[in-house]
Amino acid sequence: MGGDHGPATVIGGAEVASIRHPDVRFLIYGDEARIRPLLEKHPRVASVSEIVHTDIAVSMTDKPSQALRRGRKTSSMWLAIDAVKEGKAQVVVSAGNTGALMAMSKVILKTMPNVERPALAALWPTARGESVVLDLGATIGPDASQLVQFAVMGEAFARVVFNLERPLVGLLNIGEEEVKGTEQVKDAAQMLRDAQLPMHFHGFVEGDDISKGTVDVVVTDGYTGNIALKTAEGTARLVMEYLRAAISRSLMARIGYLFAKGAFRALAAKLDPRASNGAVFLGLNGLVVKSHGGTDATGFAAAIDVAVDVASADLVSRITADLCLLNGFDADANGQSPKTNTPESEAVLS
Amino acid sequence: MGGDHGPATVIGGAEVASIRHPDVRFLIYGDEARIRPLLEKHPRVASVSEIVHTDIAVSMTDKPSQALRRGRKTSSMWLAIDAVKEGKAQVVVSAGNTGALMAMSKVILKTMPNVERPALAALWPTARGESVVLDLGATIGPDASQLVQFAVMGEAFARVVFNLERPLVGLLNIGEEEVKGTEQVKDAAQMLRDAQLPMHFHGFVEGDDISKGTVDVVVTDGYTGNIALKTAEGTARLVMEYLRAAISRSLMARIGYLFAKGAFRALAAKLDPRASNGAVFLGLNGLVVKSHGGTDATGFAAAIDVAVDVASADLVSRITADLCLLNGFDADANGQSPKTNTPESEAVLS
Repeated sequence: MGGDHGPATVIGGAEVASIRHPDVRFLIYGDEARIRPLLEKHPRVASVSEIVHTDIAVSMTDKPSQALRRGRKTSSMWLAIDAVKEGKAQVVVSAGNTGALMAMSKVILKTMPNVERPALAALWPTARGESVVLDLGATIGPDASQLVQFAVMGEAFARVVFNLERPLVGLLNIGEEEVKGTEQVKDAAQMLRDAQLPMHFHGFVEGDDISKGTVDVVVTDGYTGNIALKTAEGTARLVMEYLRAAISRSLMARIGYLFAKGAFRALAAKLDPRASNGAVFLGLNGLVVKSHGGTDATGFAAAIDVAVDVASADLVSRITADLCLLNGFDADANGQSPKTNTPESEAVLS
Repeated sequence: MGGDHGPATVIGGAEVASIRHPDVRFLIYGDEARIRPLLEKHPRVASVSEIVHTDIAVSMTDKPSQALRRGRKTSSMWLAIDAVKEGKAQVVVSAGNTGALMAMSKVILKTMPNVERPALAALWPTARGESVVLDLGATIGPDASQLVQFAVMGEAFARVVFNLERPLVGLLNIGEEEVKGTEQVKDAAQMLRDAQLPMHFHGFVEGDDISKGTVDVVVTDGYTGNIALKTAEGTARLVMEYLRAAISRSLMARIGYLFAKGAFRALAAKLDPRASNGAVFLGLNGLVVKSHGGTDATGFAAAIDVAVDVASADLVSRITADLCLLNGFDADANGQSPKTNTPESEAVLS
């Protein structure tokens, strides 16, 4: 029910994704009276979908606390996340209210053992292909050990989505020297160097390294990551505006544009934010994918692609295992034995 | 003596700037044996310049503490900054080691009364022209009242460089809602709303608002600002690489390129980082302009342009007056009378 365009985007996106992933089935939570007519127009999705009706939907303007109060156990968002907890679904995809999705996901799925705060990770187009960047806004002001957890989670995510054995991980900072940056970032780098994890840790990277693709995984706090992401989106739009303005200014350039139209279309496709839609909440006992609220069916289908990737690879178990190594290291360092909690036992207890 | 290309860039830049600002005179600090031959090639600069010889130069790789130890009272950087303190020059421009320039400037010029930490401000190209963004890396982890000082200093800078009476000021954050962001940013917004300064405070802006030009002045901490700046530079380069790749891929597009060559040149000029070269340290009792180390004469001339702008407008006095209003407010709020320190009395005492 979420996003700027409601169910039409979701069902349209599922149609596109169904072609690419014919084995995927959908549980669609929301208002049956609005969803049913859309499914009639998309028989392919209809044949692999089941509607779970609810009248109640979280609105895009609800504060997380309001959404939790009004939508608990009844709203389409709550029920969809709960389906992941109950094992009815392997992953939930939503274009709805980000804050509410985050808050409900934390309440329902809980954070993994040894994860204090979740992170939002997404793919970022680079000169070499794509990199994972996290956190993009889930956790403001994480401490050093939380940044280390983000590094572990982001590395596991990169292994899955890029099919890499040892992704290169960097910490975002304002210089490559060890003396620069916030205390949290300096401490996190030291911890990652000392931890002797099976991780390829590159050290610090700077803002321009993200689009260079210097590393496969860029780790930062949610405040900086969110600002960097939106700054990059704004810059790409600005360059395209400059290009359009420069071309429209002369007849010769407009003629040139006609010849080079294919190239401009290729450029626009390359920069299409819909292609990299779909951010994943990492660190929860279940998979939650956030689609941009403003996207269309093409974009929503890309978010479903990400969801299929992470669900098929059983990302939660992989991250849990990696965090266990980290925790084993921490515990050894403290002279204690490694904790043996698994997310399964956590889920049963909750 | 600083920068990646040494005195050739500096003298070449001064030549270009001399044409635009025939009244400006230069004191050139450094190795006369290297500077003299360059001046002979540039008689226009030579006629308005005086060389102050010193053998000692801060290297680009010195740590700030090393530079202060080795270069104190003897290096070209120290002597050039000292000329501003002594009133022999109105502003210093350097393409040298940023950390050393910052450290020496603080030691020699001192921060203004009521300014705890300086900020580095620069112009950022936007859809509407240019905006001032600060801090770009001088102060890591400023508190709310330091962010408020940055807002006041950035606004004064924008008045001068954009010739605006009431620039619009925004605080960089991850959402426009009051509940989002770091504590420092939320507190700073509240202080700016309460302060009843003669400032046009817009509230929060997001990363993509920078290049939209939503506000004239974007205020943030040095860590986030530096990362946002480099992320934007990296993104602009990536888009241009995508464009080049798209065009070279087909014969038709290459033909189109020939027609549209003028437009591509205009685009490249618009994105030329040399055009917006020249960042200003704000909050010191004297004007210090930092040029990119990797720039050429064209870029260094742009930094001199900024220096001429801020020196002609007597930016230090303007900021001091604005900060006095802020301080008057603070003091009133604490039931004390406004402080009456002026930077002049401070300078005499130091």
